[in-house]
Amino acid sequence: MPFSPDDLATIDTPAVLIDLDIARRNIERFQHYADSHGLRVRPHIKTHKLPAIAEIQLAAGAVGITCQKVSEAEAMVAGSDAITDVLITYNILGTEKLNRLKALAQKVRLSVVADSKRVADGLSATFGDQTSLLPVLVECDTGANRCGVQSPEAAEALATYIDASPGLVFGGLMTYPPLGGESVVETFMTQAKALIEARGIAVPVITSGGTPSMMQAADAPVTTEYRPGTYVYNDGSLVARGVCGWDDCALTVLATVVSVPTPNRAIIDAGSKTLTSDLLGLTGYGHVLGRDDIAIDQLSEEHGRLISSGAIGLAVGDRVRIVPNHACVVTNMVDTVLVAGDGLSAPTSWPIVARGKIV
Amino acid sequence: MPFSPDDLATIDTPAVLIDLDIARRNIERFQHYADSHGLRVRPHIKTHKLPAIAEIQLAAGAVGITCQKVSEAEAMVAGSDAITDVLITYNILGTEKLNRLKALAQKVRLSVVADSKRVADGLSATFGDQTSLLPVLVECDTGANRCGVQSPEAAEALATYIDASPGLVFGGLMTYPPLGGESVVETFMTQAKALIEARGIAVPVITSGGTPSMMQAADAPVTTEYRPGTYVYNDGSLVARGVCGWDDCALTVLATVVSVPTPNRAIIDAGSKTLTSDLLGLTGYGHVLGRDDIAIDQLSEEHGRLISSGAIGLAVGDRVRIVPNHACVVTNMVDTVLVAGDGLSAPTSWPIVARGKIV
Repeated sequence: MPFSPDDLATIDTPAVLIDLDIARRNIERFQHYADSHGLRVRPHIKTHKLPAIAEIQLAAGAVGITCQKVSEAEAMVAGSDAITDVLITYNILGTEKLNRLKALAQKVRLSVVADSKRVADGLSATFGDQTSLLPVLVECDTGANRCGVQSPEAAEALATYIDASPGLVFGGLMTYPPLGGESVVETFMTQAKALIEARGIAVPVITSGGTPSMMQAADAPVTTEYRPGTYVYNDGSLVARGVCGWDDCALTVLATVVSVPTPNRAIIDAGSKTLTSDLLGLTGYGHVLGRDDIAIDQLSEEHGRLISSGAIGLAVGDRVRIVPNHACVVTNMVDTVLVAGDGLSAPTSWPIVARGKIV
Repeated sequence: MPFSPDDLATIDTPAVLIDLDIARRNIERFQHYADSHGLRVRPHIKTHKLPAIAEIQLAAGAVGITCQKVSEAEAMVAGSDAITDVLITYNILGTEKLNRLKALAQKVRLSVVADSKRVADGLSATFGDQTSLLPVLVECDTGANRCGVQSPEAAEALATYIDASPGLVFGGLMTYPPLGGESVVETFMTQAKALIEARGIAVPVITSGGTPSMMQAADAPVTTEYRPGTYVYNDGSLVARGVCGWDDCALTVLATVVSVPTPNRAIIDAGSKTLTSDLLGLTGYGHVLGRDDIAIDQLSEEHGRLISSGAIGLAVGDRVRIVPNHACVVTNMVDTVLVAGDGLSAPTSWPIVARGKIV
């Protein structure tokens, strides 16, 4: 029991708890799957935002980390000497960000993405005077309908453009696939790869990602690398999708009942400032461990409302542990998490080093 | 124009912008209404979390501030000598919080709430040895179905209990009403006041709150004090409810278009880590100023998806200004806001002093 009953009774609430034993098991589980299928793992740090957990992922066999924003990458690199290889899966625009990216490229092996000439042009203008080329992957839209070029032919055109741009080298293909999109990924990437290679340009990396379908990653064998994020902690959305069980959830929110106004209603001191409003398609704002009868049916910023169909059986001062719908967004709400397990003698407060890094 | 076109073209994005001229106008508008109806104003600082804006509210005539958590009150008090009167509208439980509350009571005129004997007992155990009594208001549930005693008789019983508790003095009645709940507030509070006064206990304060119906606050004339929060900035939810117009929204999110993958879709660099997932009953995650045709139909953490029924007419690198659905939660996402107007010579970065204060 990484968190003892006494810990759970005395920790000031609300608090975000991390069970490192579970996190380590989750990391090793996917690394084993990836290793056995010849896939490299490049975890997305958006879930934990912690250099110390990135170090566990790297020690388990990850080839580097994925970040979404330049400021996030800066914070992670500053936080660990073990982080030497960073992919930023985001279109980077603007003088300030590009200058920061250039400084970061002096410190680690850095690669980025682009899905338009405009983004490639900015990168080239910044890196054109460098002797070592910046690898730029082409982001492909394989059905998530977010960023990305829309066809293998568009990927080919942009890869060719990048390859001819001063300071840049084409780094491969990247996608964030829709749930269950392995066959689309396989078709799109195979075609794009063939088109690009036919131009005499190598495609060193084909990277896909997302925890929900990570155990089907090998169903798109053209993929060389996978970028799961949430898998380290898991959450209610992944339990609902059958990806894991409650016992695999390393992140929980500890909350105190502050009011029991009616027999079937209790109010806790964790609201949207802790659990967030993310529903991810679920009903309710989190799962109270051990209490399948309770729904968290409403959040305001500092209040969570728990409703039971029968008597709620909670008293003011009682504590509950909640698995949130979405772990990644919860770690962005708090300055620290309380970590236990993995040889730590007592729960320890870790600052969320890369919290709130949005630029 | 507090933010010049050049500012808007060069500020690193995403950024949360505050137009202080609009904020000041919003503050003065409600203060004028309250003054003309004999209502005291005690703004909830959850919206701005900034001592400097609390000072504007106090200078305009507010009698003090409202906070939700002890740590929030600590941060605000530490940030301004002008803050000398604080109401914490939350049931405070647990040794650590109670000790911090006691320390805070040495610095400012402090009052808190309770809706159960259990909460009153904790307060009394902590403040029982004090010579100056802690005012404790009874929180009443007037239909919001969150915290609060359920009837005027229950309010009477708890007021009597508090009044007899060592270290405490009954401080009045508090409610967070449902939208349009003025008549329920009037009935509940009038009955509770009469019952409590019949016991020979004074009811010095009856405090209600909430921006959505603040201009109907005087429809519950038993109320002596009002606690609006969002009114300082306004937001999309208040525009939708007809409380204000877009020109009254002091908080906007500046974002850059990072991708235009299809003719009717654009992706911006502000996602749920900036705009939040709060819908507050609306469709879409914010309003793009000047573009009624655009819906922000999907957010991931760092991406916002803009969809238009026709050609979206945006290019990579373009910037948009967004009024979020809910201003209060946005200021909890970022470490700083960029403030302009009100005599500032240039946009200035202000740290969000009371951000993330959840305990």
